[in-house]
Amino acid sequence: MPEFKTHLIDGRTTPRFAGVCTFCRFPVMSPSDTPDWAVYGVPFDGGVTFRPGARFGPRAVRDASAYVKPYHVEHAVNIAEKLSLVDAGDAPVRPYSIKETLDSVAHWAGSIGDPKTTRLLAVGGDHSIAYANIRATWERRGKPSKGLGLIHFDSHLDTVDAVWGERWGHASPFIRAIEDGLVDPATMISVGVKGPLNTAADLDFALSRGVTVIRRDQLGAGDALGEFVRAHPGREWYLTFDVDVVDPAFAPGTGTPSIGGITTAEALSLLRSLRGADIVGADVVEVLPDRDVAGITALFAAHVVFEILSLDAARR
Amino acid sequence: MPEFKTHLIDGRTTPRFAGVCTFCRFPVMSPSDTPDWAVYGVPFDGGVTFRPGARFGPRAVRDASAYVKPYHVEHAVNIAEKLSLVDAGDAPVRPYSIKETLDSVAHWAGSIGDPKTTRLLAVGGDHSIAYANIRATWERRGKPSKGLGLIHFDSHLDTVDAVWGERWGHASPFIRAIEDGLVDPATMISVGVKGPLNTAADLDFALSRGVTVIRRDQLGAGDALGEFVRAHPGREWYLTFDVDVVDPAFAPGTGTPSIGGITTAEALSLLRSLRGADIVGADVVEVLPDRDVAGITALFAAHVVFEILSLDAARR
Amino acid sequence: MPEFKTHLIDGRTTPRFAGVCTFCRFPVMSPSDTPDWAVYGVPFDGGVTFRPGARFGPRAVRDASAYVKPYHVEHAVNIAEKLSLVDAGDAPVRPYSIKETLDSVAHWAGSIGDPKTTRLLAVGGDHSIAYANIRATWERRGKPSKGLGLIHFDSHLDTVDAVWGERWGHASPFIRAIEDGLVDPATMISVGVKGPLNTAADLDFALSRGVTVIRRDQLGAGDALGEFVRAHPGREWYLTFDVDVVDPAFAPGTGTPSIGGITTAEALSLLRSLRGADIVGADVVEVLPDRDVAGITALFAAHVVFEILSLDAARR
Amino acid sequence: MPEFKTHLIDGRTTPRFAGVCTFCRFPVMSPSDTPDWAVYGVPFDGGVTFRPGARFGPRAVRDASAYVKPYHVEHAVNIAEKLSLVDAGDAPVRPYSIKETLDSVAHWAGSIGDPKTTRLLAVGGDHSIAYANIRATWERRGKPSKGLGLIHFDSHLDTVDAVWGERWGHASPFIRAIEDGLVDPATMISVGVKGPLNTAADLDFALSRGVTVIRRDQLGAGDALGEFVRAHPGREWYLTFDVDVVDPAFAPGTGTPSIGGITTAEALSLLRSLRGADIVGADVVEVLPDRDVAGITALFAAHVVFEILSLDAARR
Amino acid sequence: MPEFKTHLIDGRTTPRFAGVCTFCRFPVMSPSDTPDWAVYGVPFDGGVTFRPGARFGPRAVRDASAYVKPYHVEHAVNIAEKLSLVDAGDAPVRPYSIKETLDSVAHWAGSIGDPKTTRLLAVGGDHSIAYANIRATWERRGKPSKGLGLIHFDSHLDTVDAVWGERWGHASPFIRAIEDGLVDPATMISVGVKGPLNTAADLDFALSRGVTVIRRDQLGAGDALGEFVRAHPGREWYLTFDVDVVDPAFAPGTGTPSIGGITTAEALSLLRSLRGADIVGADVVEVLPDRDVAGITALFAAHVVFEILSLDAARR
Amino acid sequence: MPEFKTHLIDGRTTPRFAGVCTFCRFPVMSPSDTPDWAVYGVPFDGGVTFRPGARFGPRAVRDASAYVKPYHVEHAVNIAEKLSLVDAGDAPVRPYSIKETLDSVAHWAGSIGDPKTTRLLAVGGDHSIAYANIRATWERRGKPSKGLGLIHFDSHLDTVDAVWGERWGHASPFIRAIEDGLVDPATMISVGVKGPLNTAADLDFALSRGVTVIRRDQLGAGDALGEFVRAHPGREWYLTFDVDVVDPAFAPGTGTPSIGGITTAEALSLLRSLRGADIVGADVVEVLPDRDVAGITALFAAHVVFEILSLDAARR
Repeated sequence: MPEFKTHLIDGRTTPRFAGVCTFCRFPVMSPSDTPDWAVYGVPFDGGVTFRPGARFGPRAVRDASAYVKPYHVEHAVNIAEKLSLVDAGDAPVRPYSIKETLDSVAHWAGSIGDPKTTRLLAVGGDHSIAYANIRATWERRGKPSKGLGLIHFDSHLDTVDAVWGERWGHASPFIRAIEDGLVDPATMISVGVKGPLNTAADLDFALSRGVTVIRRDQLGAGDALGEFVRAHPGREWYLTFDVDVVDPAFAPGTGTPSIGGITTAEALSLLRSLRGADIVGADVVEVLPDRDVAGITALFAAHVVFEILSLDAARR
Repeated sequence: MPEFKTHLIDGRTTPRFAGVCTFCRFPVMSPSDTPDWAVYGVPFDGGVTFRPGARFGPRAVRDASAYVKPYHVEHAVNIAEKLSLVDAGDAPVRPYSIKETLDSVAHWAGSIGDPKTTRLLAVGGDHSIAYANIRATWERRGKPSKGLGLIHFDSHLDTVDAVWGERWGHASPFIRAIEDGLVDPATMISVGVKGPLNTAADLDFALSRGVTVIRRDQLGAGDALGEFVRAHPGREWYLTFDVDVVDPAFAPGTGTPSIGGITTAEALSLLRSLRGADIVGADVVEVLPDRDVAGITALFAAHVVFEILSLDAARR
Repeated sequence: MPEFKTHLIDGRTTPRFAGVCTFCRFPVMSPSDTPDWAVYGVPFDGGVTFRPGARFGPRAVRDASAYVKPYHVEHAVNIAEKLSLVDAGDAPVRPYSIKETLDSVAHWAGSIGDPKTTRLLAVGGDHSIAYANIRATWERRGKPSKGLGLIHFDSHLDTVDAVWGERWGHASPFIRAIEDGLVDPATMISVGVKGPLNTAADLDFALSRGVTVIRRDQLGAGDALGEFVRAHPGREWYLTFDVDVVDPAFAPGTGTPSIGGITTAEALSLLRSLRGADIVGADVVEVLPDRDVAGITALFAAHVVFEILSLDAARR
Repeated sequence: MPEFKTHLIDGRTTPRFAGVCTFCRFPVMSPSDTPDWAVYGVPFDGGVTFRPGARFGPRAVRDASAYVKPYHVEHAVNIAEKLSLVDAGDAPVRPYSIKETLDSVAHWAGSIGDPKTTRLLAVGGDHSIAYANIRATWERRGKPSKGLGLIHFDSHLDTVDAVWGERWGHASPFIRAIEDGLVDPATMISVGVKGPLNTAADLDFALSRGVTVIRRDQLGAGDALGEFVRAHPGREWYLTFDVDVVDPAFAPGTGTPSIGGITTAEALSLLRSLRGADIVGADVVEVLPDRDVAGITALFAAHVVFEILSLDAARR
Repeated sequence: MPEFKTHLIDGRTTPRFAGVCTFCRFPVMSPSDTPDWAVYGVPFDGGVTFRPGARFGPRAVRDASAYVKPYHVEHAVNIAEKLSLVDAGDAPVRPYSIKETLDSVAHWAGSIGDPKTTRLLAVGGDHSIAYANIRATWERRGKPSKGLGLIHFDSHLDTVDAVWGERWGHASPFIRAIEDGLVDPATMISVGVKGPLNTAADLDFALSRGVTVIRRDQLGAGDALGEFVRAHPGREWYLTFDVDVVDPAFAPGTGTPSIGGITTAEALSLLRSLRGADIVGADVVEVLPDRDVAGITALFAAHVVFEILSLDAARR
Repeated sequence: MPEFKTHLIDGRTTPRFAGVCTFCRFPVMSPSDTPDWAVYGVPFDGGVTFRPGARFGPRAVRDASAYVKPYHVEHAVNIAEKLSLVDAGDAPVRPYSIKETLDSVAHWAGSIGDPKTTRLLAVGGDHSIAYANIRATWERRGKPSKGLGLIHFDSHLDTVDAVWGERWGHASPFIRAIEDGLVDPATMISVGVKGPLNTAADLDFALSRGVTVIRRDQLGAGDALGEFVRAHPGREWYLTFDVDVVDPAFAPGTGTPSIGGITTAEALSLLRSLRGADIVGADVVEVLPDRDVAGITALFAAHVVFEILSLDAARR
């Protein structure tokens, strides 16, 4: 496939179960590469409030992603043909400090590829790391004063001010990103949110800030998400995807599972409804391999990575 | 939260993974307590016809329920604010005898709290134990001659006369409850029932007694369950929930799984459609932890307990 | 049940967890039997392109099928009453050669029961073995020059010409069957297909041959499958069912799982929509027990066997 | 292998993972067979005091035993050559009653093969079923007034009078067998016993009855077991083997695991030290598949069956 | 058992699988209790350098310990008769800070029971928490200037100065305890240590400080541990037990498993060789339930708790 | 560590759970590298006679080996200091043909590094692949007419002529290597072999060829293996290690587990007894991740790789 922008190891000569694992079998990044997208891992779970273990997430997603193929049927696009893609390795983490890790990741991510053209897709790790990738993305998009648009898939709002006195944990990335001007709550949409909650205040807070919330029980046959995105033409969007938005039957390998979630088919459908949106950065988080069964959570996360890249490939 | 009726250990000081486990972190019942609801376990699986192990169900549900939070988003109610709730421990069982266990449980449950105001929610154990809690509930509701209304979630009808000569096993609680006048078949509705069956007679029997059966393939976009309940205003209902009504993908940890079931999201929707019904007693049964994966069955069962309590909290 | 065509061990005297396991507790075939359907295993996984282990599939399905009961509620038919059914054991395989195995299985299957009246249901094993059972079925249906109709449930098209130079692997059974005239692409329908793919060519090829493809995202409220079948009255159909058509949450125990699949409830509904079709042979394949959880994949496969037999029982 | 007494399916033509499973691939017993040994299952766990599930033990042992080969290296004997061996199926059980099950099993076992020459090896099921096979063995050995010798491998003594009022549970088979004269405590030896216990009384009782107890911490380099057996020449021995005698690392799949146990290598060595003893009946019990990992407990149990048969083959 | 110092729920009336779980079914501590030993949990894993999850350790050990019986056969002592024992609940933790957690735990533990007579047994959590319980123990033993003796079971030395700049993690509790004068390296013995190591410096350091190290390959038939302890008569010992000292086959559920370890039988033998030593405090750490299989690691840890208490019961 | 021959990623800056996985975190080989040892994977299981899946072995060993540290305590040597070590990736395989795979692997391995100085360590894959690495090793050692010495750890002899007509499967590598003059049976020793066998002929054959066999039950306190090796001074040895030589409790993740095996501690002791032997090539095979629990089999295999490299490091 010499004409393709990404050289994939040919599945017809080297089986998908062979070789050193990288994200979707993309090449390991070289210092001089300036890819369209750099996919990297953040093996960090120091921000969790319940069950830890997502530090092994990037490894599990690399392993499962060996089975991701490049041609997207519904979008009719081959991501390797349209995009240059690399595995940039794992960001440096500080396992004992959330804030130091976020600073370290954001700084490191800032140096990847060409700041003007290389987009960043982080694979967690817990959701706290989204802040770091949002910051790095916001910086390389020219530090827009209005902040980025945010498309947020999750069972939880993650806009809690602090847990046990910690303001940077995985319940808080978006309140921090809003406070710091990285994200504009008027163009933030949280999809798949559900209860129960500790108090009504969690939800009230997000609504009061202008965040659009589509609860899981409000998801129906309509296309509210696609409409929201199309209502803001020209917006640059950051997409953050917490795998716990799907039901634990589909994603048991996560730290704060929430029953009554959407199916993976519904998740794919929602992602595909974003066609046309300009996704300038993204993350897929909260894969916890020790609770996974038959690798289905990691396999799903790997395909979410693929769907995100396909959105950009289809748009170009 | 001093004004709340139930004092919950504050998740902001004591993590949810800490401490001795009780149902939903409710306080252990004191002898003088007269709570609105007493949740108790029945660690018994002597009534099964296939795979045993549900005796470990109460323990697994206590463990998983540590993650149940008190505020119900869709009903907009905090159960701990509206209701006084306790963990009453486990009922005394006789592992080698179904009938002795049912008598022991019913007698013990009869003595919990204030017979006039304390409602009983039993966590199984196999479905045979439903009879005991129905009897105890019927007695404290004044032994209504007409019997209680029964809302029954299950893949199976559980109205078989006897299996291997045993009339009190987990295939028979409702035929016994009907025979003994505890339940009125005219206000009994079985939701989610499906085949295959040994013979057509099982289903024919229930229908002949006037039970309303909504088969799993008959569940659609409508609100047949809510309509049934609203068609009987003023009725006191007992709710019995067998976790095998949801598909084994969502509840693998159960003894007689039945493929092609509803999703947990559908189950939540059905439960919420009961809003307004006066639930005077309930059980959640057939959690078998040794077949569970990542604790998702127990987590689901814990949230069914929460949904039932929320119905009552929302009604008051 | 002396009047029934199949003598099942009575579940009322011998528990379903007892005894030597056969498919659905059907009798082991005797040399002189001429049953309506012979169910047999093909413990072979030499044709896989990714994860092996389906050689243990027949054993797992036999085990799980002990819980299959004979009365089909929705079709209102008892398969044991209407049909004579046997477990014919496992076909002889050559673990080191796909082609030799296919020849061996087809030859052996050709000798089962009465070639004119006994229909064959093979339990895999990987999907490569479908070719052998299709061949045996086509032969005993009189080698129709037009080939058989094919109803194909799968996430994958399985019409790849060759993988690593091998033309008989599990990605190729239907291209071979079409080439050899066993199947008529004009009456072949593939249901539940989805991406990603290596290239668009895989899908284009099938479409160019006239195969009707209903992608997973095209499945909706309609009855396209039933309409397709009814549009070809009098056709003899072979039904091939790859368990990976359902989502990995429902069938984790398979070798090439594909996320975003249909539910088991949707699968049952699709199968039941075939009522009236004349199914003259079938297979259920790709159960990989080492990846299964709580036996739910094998349990599902066992019920697909039951659904297929019920279609024939309901038709007669 | 035409000269062999047992016709085994040839592993060189039919892989060990193929076909309907029987114990060690022995033929299914025909009514007219008079084998040297009949191996049968007892799918019963109604006698347990802790974790149930051993009713699935016979099925798991049949499955695992497909990998048992017939030539014993250390004894230099081929069991299929020396002995005629069959799988006699599962005994009829009454899941809701221990005593009825014991009567049913003993009665059924009494009718197997030639009472004078066919020896019985029961595969449990929980340890309560040992009583039934001991009774059947004692009867076909001519009801010796002195009782049989008993070689007992176990972490527990199983000589408790009653638990929760039940005298026939899995803690009591040997006190009942001693009381009924089936076993002579002077020629009973319990090997591998360990604590902790509820009270010292359990152990004191066994010792007071004259049972020889070799605690797990007393097992060393010596050959106390072999010496005990050789000290009673001409004795007919019954051998009962509870898999929980080995450490849970080697046999996790059991209901009352006891840490600090012997290894499987030590168990094999102890069994082989019995060479020369006349084993007239035996059982292998307490395999609980739902707690097993990678089938290692069932695989071990299958080889204990093989070791017992090899002792008899080597003696003849 | 009215004369016993600890009132245990009678296993003859309430099955061991029933009720709210406490350590070994000991009573929950009341504020006024002054027990001989208080067993408490520390649900903290913020100090790990590899795999997290031990925060769920106390919960798993409570669950498994329901099967711990009170009579120790080899020491011939009933711990409930000799000692008053309670479950003191879980210590307050600060999930995001090791040092704050250690301070919080040590302070809280300092207030338990009677400082002069109540001894403390902490169940981890990761090994970092040992420091806190050592400090609390040292304080209530009168802050001996020489420090406590330390008996240390572990695959690792845990005397690393710092990892990733953190000096309080689970690789460092004993270097900190030595530095702070809580432990006397001359009476510290580490048993079961093995490699590989990052560098030889780790081991050299411990030896240079005078720690006695018995490597796993140096453990033989002798009684070096017992001799060491007896060589220091009158010493007050703290016992710290990391479950990873046994092989992963016996304790898979731990965060830094080390292959080639001792067996649980060897561990029990070593523990029992300490008979006579005055154990004034102890911990059992590093149980990680998400990696456990069939609960065997938690079951082992529960019995280590029992063995430690038995040593004290046997000494009194 | 600039003076070390192998540059390892520093565990003090990059956690062991981070980054793209290579064997023991060795650098990925560059075309111009001429390392002392090249470790490579062979993801092939087409040679198995029972349970497949070892094709995923190299991936699992890479993952587990992230926790292998470089300093060997007992040999007092740091492998990274003494040896230059690389991960050479995976050899090209032909999944559908054993012989083509062996040819492909041997040819590819022949081209790695400097044929004169680079030694090859293959990680399987099933045991059939040993032949290829033996051939490549024999060739680069100058095709010694006498063949190489062979140190063979295994529960099985692997000297079967053919299974199902196939002469190159995993039961036959050493008979082929002997026939082809690659191995000298007079200096071949098989350690840990045990039964049962299909026939006595398997063992007789090996003995008749002059192979030294130390059965598992013959392993004792002595040093027969070390003596054998020292009895042949100057010999160049190939070491082949089948993980099924240890008991399934320690290595459940393998395809033909054999109960009653040695412990991992015994395996380490045997490996270390080889100190001084000149190991010129090696393999570690038969890791089957889908049957593994908590990764203990892969972790063990990773440490066997480390022990083999340490033998060479200690010798130099």
